[in-house]
Amino acid sequence: MERPRHQGMAKNTYMRWRLPLVCLLWEVAMIVLFGVFVRFDAEADAHWEEEKQEKNLTSDIENDFYFRYPSFQDVHVMIFVGFGFLMTFLKRYGFGAVGFNFLLAAFGIQWALLMQGWFHSFKGGKILIGVENLINADFCVGSVCIAFGAILGKTSPIQLLVMTLFQVTLFSVNEYILLNLLHVKDAGGSMTIHTFGAYFGLVVTRILYRPNLEQSKDKQGSVYHSDLFAMIGTLYLWMYWPSFNSAISEHGDAQHRAAINTYCSLAACVLTTMAFSSMLQKKGKLDMVHIQNATLAGGVAVGTSAEMMLTPYGSLIVGFICGIVSTVGYVYLTPFLESRLHIQDTCGIHNLHAMPGLIGGIVGAITAAAATEDVYGKEGFIKAFDFTGTYQTRTPSVQGGFQAAGIVVSLLMALAGGALVGAILKLPLWGDPAAENCFEDDIYWEVPEDEESDAYHMHNPDKASSP
Amino acid sequence: MERPRHQGMAKNTYMRWRLPLVCLLWEVAMIVLFGVFVRFDAEADAHWEEEKQEKNLTSDIENDFYFRYPSFQDVHVMIFVGFGFLMTFLKRYGFGAVGFNFLLAAFGIQWALLMQGWFHSFKGGKILIGVENLINADFCVGSVCIAFGAILGKTSPIQLLVMTLFQVTLFSVNEYILLNLLHVKDAGGSMTIHTFGAYFGLVVTRILYRPNLEQSKDKQGSVYHSDLFAMIGTLYLWMYWPSFNSAISEHGDAQHRAAINTYCSLAACVLTTMAFSSMLQKKGKLDMVHIQNATLAGGVAVGTSAEMMLTPYGSLIVGFICGIVSTVGYVYLTPFLESRLHIQDTCGIHNLHAMPGLIGGIVGAITAAAATEDVYGKEGFIKAFDFTGTYQTRTPSVQGGFQAAGIVVSLLMALAGGALVGAILKLPLWGDPAAENCFEDDIYWEVPEDEESDAYHMHNPDKASSP
Amino acid sequence: MERPRHQGMAKNTYMRWRLPLVCLLWEVAMIVLFGVFVRFDAEADAHWEEEKQEKNLTSDIENDFYFRYPSFQDVHVMIFVGFGFLMTFLKRYGFGAVGFNFLLAAFGIQWALLMQGWFHSFKGGKILIGVENLINADFCVGSVCIAFGAILGKTSPIQLLVMTLFQVTLFSVNEYILLNLLHVKDAGGSMTIHTFGAYFGLVVTRILYRPNLEQSKDKQGSVYHSDLFAMIGTLYLWMYWPSFNSAISEHGDAQHRAAINTYCSLAACVLTTMAFSSMLQKKGKLDMVHIQNATLAGGVAVGTSAEMMLTPYGSLIVGFICGIVSTVGYVYLTPFLESRLHIQDTCGIHNLHAMPGLIGGIVGAITAAAATEDVYGKEGFIKAFDFTGTYQTRTPSVQGGFQAAGIVVSLLMALAGGALVGAILKLPLWGDPAAENCFEDDIYWEVPEDEESDAYHMHNPDKASSP
Repeated sequence: MERPRHQGMAKNTYMRWRLPLVCLLWEVAMIVLFGVFVRFDAEADAHWEEEKQEKNLTSDIENDFYFRYPSFQDVHVMIFVGFGFLMTFLKRYGFGAVGFNFLLAAFGIQWALLMQGWFHSFKGGKILIGVENLINADFCVGSVCIAFGAILGKTSPIQLLVMTLFQVTLFSVNEYILLNLLHVKDAGGSMTIHTFGAYFGLVVTRILYRPNLEQSKDKQGSVYHSDLFAMIGTLYLWMYWPSFNSAISEHGDAQHRAAINTYCSLAACVLTTMAFSSMLQKKGKLDMVHIQNATLAGGVAVGTSAEMMLTPYGSLIVGFICGIVSTVGYVYLTPFLESRLHIQDTCGIHNLHAMPGLIGGIVGAITAAAATEDVYGKEGFIKAFDFTGTYQTRTPSVQGGFQAAGIVVSLLMALAGGALVGAILKLPLWGDPAAENCFEDDIYWEVPEDEESDAYHMHNPDKASSP
Repeated sequence: MERPRHQGMAKNTYMRWRLPLVCLLWEVAMIVLFGVFVRFDAEADAHWEEEKQEKNLTSDIENDFYFRYPSFQDVHVMIFVGFGFLMTFLKRYGFGAVGFNFLLAAFGIQWALLMQGWFHSFKGGKILIGVENLINADFCVGSVCIAFGAILGKTSPIQLLVMTLFQVTLFSVNEYILLNLLHVKDAGGSMTIHTFGAYFGLVVTRILYRPNLEQSKDKQGSVYHSDLFAMIGTLYLWMYWPSFNSAISEHGDAQHRAAINTYCSLAACVLTTMAFSSMLQKKGKLDMVHIQNATLAGGVAVGTSAEMMLTPYGSLIVGFICGIVSTVGYVYLTPFLESRLHIQDTCGIHNLHAMPGLIGGIVGAITAAAATEDVYGKEGFIKAFDFTGTYQTRTPSVQGGFQAAGIVVSLLMALAGGALVGAILKLPLWGDPAAENCFEDDIYWEVPEDEESDAYHMHNPDKASSP
Repeated sequence: MERPRHQGMAKNTYMRWRLPLVCLLWEVAMIVLFGVFVRFDAEADAHWEEEKQEKNLTSDIENDFYFRYPSFQDVHVMIFVGFGFLMTFLKRYGFGAVGFNFLLAAFGIQWALLMQGWFHSFKGGKILIGVENLINADFCVGSVCIAFGAILGKTSPIQLLVMTLFQVTLFSVNEYILLNLLHVKDAGGSMTIHTFGAYFGLVVTRILYRPNLEQSKDKQGSVYHSDLFAMIGTLYLWMYWPSFNSAISEHGDAQHRAAINTYCSLAACVLTTMAFSSMLQKKGKLDMVHIQNATLAGGVAVGTSAEMMLTPYGSLIVGFICGIVSTVGYVYLTPFLESRLHIQDTCGIHNLHAMPGLIGGIVGAITAAAATEDVYGKEGFIKAFDFTGTYQTRTPSVQGGFQAAGIVVSLLMALAGGALVGAILKLPLWGDPAAENCFEDDIYWEVPEDEESDAYHMHNPDKASSP
């Protein structure tokens, strides 16, 4: 009854010592660094009572926890269930999709708390963390989940941990350049998360190009129920994206507005995705790959501008366009990238994150450049773009220019970083699978017997003994 | 290996030009109408800083966003994952269940923002939207998802989009009559959402009656894992129903109370559902159809009264009764409706939404009529029923009468509206499937190879070549 | 085509009269008791307007609903989807896992509202309930879900309802002893929920020991998709655990801190689980059982201390250790407990809840004993441990001693209570399945035809007629 699987004899995928070593080493490093650096910020520290008196706060409800915790939990679900299940569409890679995503994200959030902490929350020699840091750590890891989508099924868990270590580091540097040096707005991360994460992943998968991948082509598709599992991921990403884009916006109207804009953009995106999915097929049937992915492009593309006065109809237009761009990308661009540019993009992140991310950066730059005191109100204008201190004299058009510069920087950082990390991952140390074993859980996981071999067929002695 | 499926030759189900056309046309219409009409309300607009000063608000936490956003997200999950997955119980219609629900809801919320906006949020020529509008749009679409349950598996996506357009319109008119003209309370929508949506859907499916539906009877059941997918939908509906019924209640005690009442009613409902599911079966075994559906009837039935002083034990009683009514309905009424009245109700919405919705309307009327200043407190009494302005002199018993009138109006609107829309959907334009192709994803979706035909059986050359 | 299943002839598993009787009897009892005792508390009652004026509250946002409702909903998801789906890993017990969990939890929360209400919210002859009571009821039921994990697949639904009745009662007594008599802190329930629930369940399963359980060994494993369903449960438990541990903490910094500590502990736990899962296997492959369960041990183990100043690195250390302890437990301890001590622990709750629960109690005792005014601030110190009134003079080290006493009390209550309830469940009244029918939905559920027998194979006349 045992199903003979082609064990990757050509490659050593034995994880027994390497994977535990990497996991334990890195976790010990986290503990040491957290011990030296990480403490609670004022709102999570038991001294908060004194802080409240100092700041003259009359109620505990003013604690940032109550402004952001619900959004944090939504974002948390997007990272672990959203991305994890979105990638379970492969027929025999569900364990790897959801399990490796779990592993890399659990490590990544710790490292992100440190990296982002050093850049943004470092006070008196300590990183002071609160709920906003947790959200930002999840965001940072989101960019790794995106890159994971490009190399899904073709790497070992160790490679993923190595990639996470480097990508989180580079993400934080890029984020620092954009937010602090260029003073760019990017609350939902069109540039820092999506553009950066996607081009990073695409370069990595280009460098890890496998000429013989058609050997595992039969495993690169879905089955009926794996497509339904993937829809769980899709829907959670889609439903909670308004929380994603508003999670770290300013309290009050900005959070409120970001949620509404994202809601609108996503709704429009579903209709154009359905339209083009049907239109681009000879038989006119809908393709689950498009529904699972392109419907989300609208959320990516308002990542920069959602907290601005993009307006609901502006959001609809952005969503409208991105559903089309993304679906067309799946039909025409993904095959082209694979055959001509040797970019093997398992989940099609180029269509879901790279192009919509760029569009999102551009929309953000235009929306910022078009801002006026009339539209935002005198105080709202200053608050929306944080035109205070050094930036007091910055005009909208200058801000737009810096926003555009942010796109370019993110892109360059992604390309350079991806090349570096891709080269590291190509070293023959990390136990990646042979081409014929890609997209197959059996290499790294204990996989249970198939359904039909025992539970379903135990009544049929003829069949049970036939092979 | 290809499985020969009966392609609907008798009917033209080719979607390639019709579906894209409808999707794009309607989305363009949305963009134009949003451009002309929709703007942010004061709490989502960048002028909020000025608004705050005017209203003398000291904290951003007073923004309605923080009162309602968590509930909104729960409602959002109910619409897309709750309804979507609840309907995946059919063995070969999972894509259609979750995908078409996604499509119609994404369109519906846009159109609902407009329709409800014109009736309720129209100021100075513009519809001003905030988080409460998003919740109401989701509510409105909920009634379409309910109607979808009756015709599940028997319609084309175009028919669903046409139905959504009309149903959202009629829903908004009905809602306006109830809430504004009759001044009726219905925060959780027993009347506006459930009674209206269910009877609307039942009339539509009656008009679309298919005499030869037994041709696809083999596909009208579930398989083991499709029942588990459906339980995801059930549980999310069940868990988040307290948010549903409290989402648009008054700030403070009303929201708090609505959540508690709903929680209690739902808990009681589970026990009577289990009891009657076992009792009504010769073998005494539990039936997944009942567990998936009748356990939710308790939430429907306190939709009107949850925010009133129904009290926890009152809620238990309502839930107790509705679990019984709904389960008995599945066992006896659904077959009767199909054989005698030619109402083919795929999901049994008559048992889950129609009857409990009516009960909910009646419970609401009684609870309102029984209200006293003693129970509510002087101010609480006025606030609970909004007995201000023109309605200053309305007494509880009069309010109860108007509540009862609301049930009748909803019912009549549903019957008339359903008849109209059913007639429109019967036109031979929309590409609906032939009777033998109902409940089959293959007509409108690219469906992957079956699990057993490749991944699972590739080791078995005999079987692979046998057919 | 009918698959011959071994109906439990040896045992009478016929539920038709017994299950409905128990369900209806108990629900009627709930209604009567709720009618006599349960009312809304001040924040959910329509008199809240007057309460607000009395307490000089300026805003509805001060209602406890807004502090706790988002956390409540997360906890609610953990109980129903988290525990329910975690247990769907068995190949043919998915209906029972998710359905019986639904049943016992829906009954349990009602009984818990009463039991906990009498102990903690009893004023003027009435139990006054608000959102915190709902959370506590969910918590209490959580301990029953844990115990259910040990006996999963081996009991009838009636036995589960009987167990729930007794366990909720004993839980409430134990909780009262700890929180009120010993004045112990245990916001996330390491002692009251996990230690108590797990040892209770282990004693019950010991008493219900089945010597011939290997007769159903073939059904005690998972299949590919059932492992993915279980991962839904795992991830929701993992993601929402920060809400669980912070849900009933004091407003402000304590809730904030509890969430951060739990987030950190859980992240570390994933890495050591993965490390040891691979390390303890000859082939070095990861085992889904570990990933599904041991990754959660970090949340259990900071249940007592999360709201204290455990600090992020302290949390990492706790998570680090518990991932190891739990995984090692699955590999070595579970087989030992079964073969030597005759403890048949289906889900391995000893590894996920019992040991981490004890560790959590100990960590809490140490953290409390180590508390200083310097670390907590003068006011924070008093607030964190509620050193007021009678407890004004209690020192941290004394508190640590009481915390340790709480562990012992919980353990003894669990052992004694489990023995009592196990003996009751052993009575031949409750319709439990025969050994060869364990882990099989078919005994208590209408199970649909297998997938392959109709939908998938209808094209293959040879195979369809073969048996």
